Amino acid sequence: MKSDLDALMKEKNIDALLVLGNAENNPSMYYFTGSGHVAHAVLIKKRNEAPVLFCNSMERDEAAKSGLEVVPLERAPIAVFSKFPAELFGEHGISEGRVGVYGISDANAILFLMDQLRSLFPRVEFFGEKGGDTVFLRAMETKEDVEVARIRQMGAVTTQVVGLVQEFLTSSDVRSDEVLMKEDGSPLTIGDVKGKISLWLAERGAVDVEGCIFAIGHDAGVPHSVGDPVEPITLGKTIVFDIFPAEKGGGYFYDFTRTWSLGYATPEAQAMYDQVQEVYDKVIENLDLNANFKDYQLMTCEYFESKGHKSHLNTKNPMDGYVHGLGHGVGLNIHERPNAGLASGDDNILKPGVVITIEPGLYYPEMGMGFRIEDSYWVRPDGQFEKLAEYPYDFVLEMKKWKKN
Amino acid sequence: MKSDLDALMKEKNIDALLVLGNAENNPSMYYFTGSGHVAHAVLIKKRNEAPVLFCNSMERDEAAKSGLEVVPLERAPIAVFSKFPAELFGEHGISEGRVGVYGISDANAILFLMDQLRSLFPRVEFFGEKGGDTVFLRAMETKEDVEVARIRQMGAVTTQVVGLVQEFLTSSDVRSDEVLMKEDGSPLTIGDVKGKISLWLAERGAVDVEGCIFAIGHDAGVPHSVGDPVEPITLGKTIVFDIFPAEKGGGYFYDFTRTWSLGYATPEAQAMYDQVQEVYDKVIENLDLNANFKDYQLMTCEYFESKGHKSHLNTKNPMDGYVHGLGHGVGLNIHERPNAGLASGDDNILKPGVVITIEPGLYYPEMGMGFRIEDSYWVRPDGQFEKLAEYPYDFVLEMKKWKKN
Repeated sequence: MKSDLDALMKEKNIDALLVLGNAENNPSMYYFTGSGHVAHAVLIKKRNEAPVLFCNSMERDEAAKSGLEVVPLERAPIAVFSKFPAELFGEHGISEGRVGVYGISDANAILFLMDQLRSLFPRVEFFGEKGGDTVFLRAMETKEDVEVARIRQMGAVTTQVVGLVQEFLTSSDVRSDEVLMKEDGSPLTIGDVKGKISLWLAERGAVDVEGCIFAIGHDAGVPHSVGDPVEPITLGKTIVFDIFPAEKGGGYFYDFTRTWSLGYATPEAQAMYDQVQEVYDKVIENLDLNANFKDYQLMTCEYFESKGHKSHLNTKNPMDGYVHGLGHGVGLNIHERPNAGLASGDDNILKPGVVITIEPGLYYPEMGMGFRIEDSYWVRPDGQFEKLAEYPYDFVLEMKKWKKN
Repeated sequence: MKSDLDALMKEKNIDALLVLGNAENNPSMYYFTGSGHVAHAVLIKKRNEAPVLFCNSMERDEAAKSGLEVVPLERAPIAVFSKFPAELFGEHGISEGRVGVYGISDANAILFLMDQLRSLFPRVEFFGEKGGDTVFLRAMETKEDVEVARIRQMGAVTTQVVGLVQEFLTSSDVRSDEVLMKEDGSPLTIGDVKGKISLWLAERGAVDVEGCIFAIGHDAGVPHSVGDPVEPITLGKTIVFDIFPAEKGGGYFYDFTRTWSLGYATPEAQAMYDQVQEVYDKVIENLDLNANFKDYQLMTCEYFESKGHKSHLNTKNPMDGYVHGLGHGVGLNIHERPNAGLASGDDNILKPGVVITIEPGLYYPEMGMGFRIEDSYWVRPDGQFEKLAEYPYDFVLEMKKWKKN
């Protein structure tokens, strides 16, 4: 958590953190500011000292909401920085040492600025850490209670919206060709459903900032396919609905998936769904405090291989079967530490404070089907694994206005 | 426009453009891709050659929608790039020359990658251009018709939503203390109105991705104050409503402001509004093809100073009066070239193809009031200035359920 930053900086021999970009939609900055509309800010945190936020004086009130020490400048800090780096940086007293640079910003501006700073401060080493293992991602790996509360709240929003989608779909009229129908008689499409999802999230202060997956049939069998907006929604095909909204402005994410088959399911689909459900339950039952996350990836691969599916265990980059990792951390980033991949380091541990997804799945694009079940879990300080939002696991959803002959 | 890029690269002695980041919410990348859910992509455009998009093979279908040449890779390109820069970059044949680096991405990852590339390709100069004047911002300065059509469409969405907000406010019940009231009797707040705005934008495929300004009284007098969510909406106070949504996923923006006073206005407020309206009209009447944008900033400053207000003309950083620039270009970025500021270069010209805002205003936070009128205009190829969305300029909005005693 945030209080680990100084120790992590020491471990990595970092004297100061330099964070660039807006306060919103920028995890490293938002981790300190918590919210607020501050554009092109600069944050400097020296080791064992409190962070200082530099902002344009016009945005001092917004910056003050962070509770941080705020230094207002006449112009945008990034402009001050670019034109007179010594004015901002030199004053702040970092004239030598190792400075890690973070934040979502424009590559162009970052490179320009860094080249200026490097020539002005030759005794400072400005560097980027290797992705996936920065001090921020290390600190963010374990959550404070206040962060978990926000993730849980986003889980409540997520499951409310999933419920509305389920109600909307199952209340729809169905044409004789088993395609769902809008009031005007035209087919209900994935694009229509996604429009509703955005809307229902917006009503609740959430945004599907990274989109959402609502994929049917063949596309459900391709884990990264987000679904084709013009595709009509049809009975008896698998729908993978993976929704991962965040608090508006760049706050905490939730990550959740259900797989549905409207009206009825083919026996092949039902059998595969049952396997996904079985291994999901098996993983959840076996979760142990301080276990290595990838042990459960191994458990999942072994289970699926025992049922005749390919997995990463014995196939390099399988194109069908179980083709991805079991889960990942979730927080201000949709993908954080710890990771469950078989190649992940042994420091990806289910320790107290982590919030993780568990999401086994099966993918058969050529058979026109795919499956995934996903919930987000918090490893509580008392060692219990708590699911952060409840939702039923029904696979076949009964249609209110349609009956199978 | 995009076809100017090669000439601009030649002018600036740039051999290739390297664009990093997602396809969405990333203007430089989106300028080429147009849409599509491609994460962590890499785009390389050599001078006088077509751009090439590298993507994760799982996202090849999304990438193909761009119509660009797509090179799918086994893993995320940025990961391939970080681990084996030569594999991606060397193969593509840029072994010497000047390469400009662009795109919204993580500062940390950019710096790490650049340091690797610089050591692997010592004869390539990787650099960031100075902000505000990159080849992208130069090219984006003039728009193709297809881009203008999208901005105009966003203007239609914007004014529809402004109309809904106006209807919502003027239909509200009013308490005896002149505070607007919700059905449950509690005060209608800025937060309530902003919730509606987000919702009505989402219904139309738009997002207030950079927020919106709905500021009343004192806050209306501070140009960058976005408004306090818990503040109740009250009759007879000025409301600055500055809305600048974009197409969902990071497309084109529109920029628009109206100032309202609900029910009635104080005589002081009405007089100031009339001045803002008068100088707005004067600027619009005098807009000339190929004029220098800052000539109109000068005209506006002179007008306001003649009425006794401060401006940048004779006051450094005025805190009241006319405190900002007259306008800016708008497109994939909310602020683009050309700029109207008095310190802007003489190459900020109202040439055919630019889309600009005109937004004079007056600000008196201590008097609890502020004013701004803003529309977006396209300088057409025939030299005419076309307002891209119409909306009335009423200042006092009549309340349907309230009459002044």
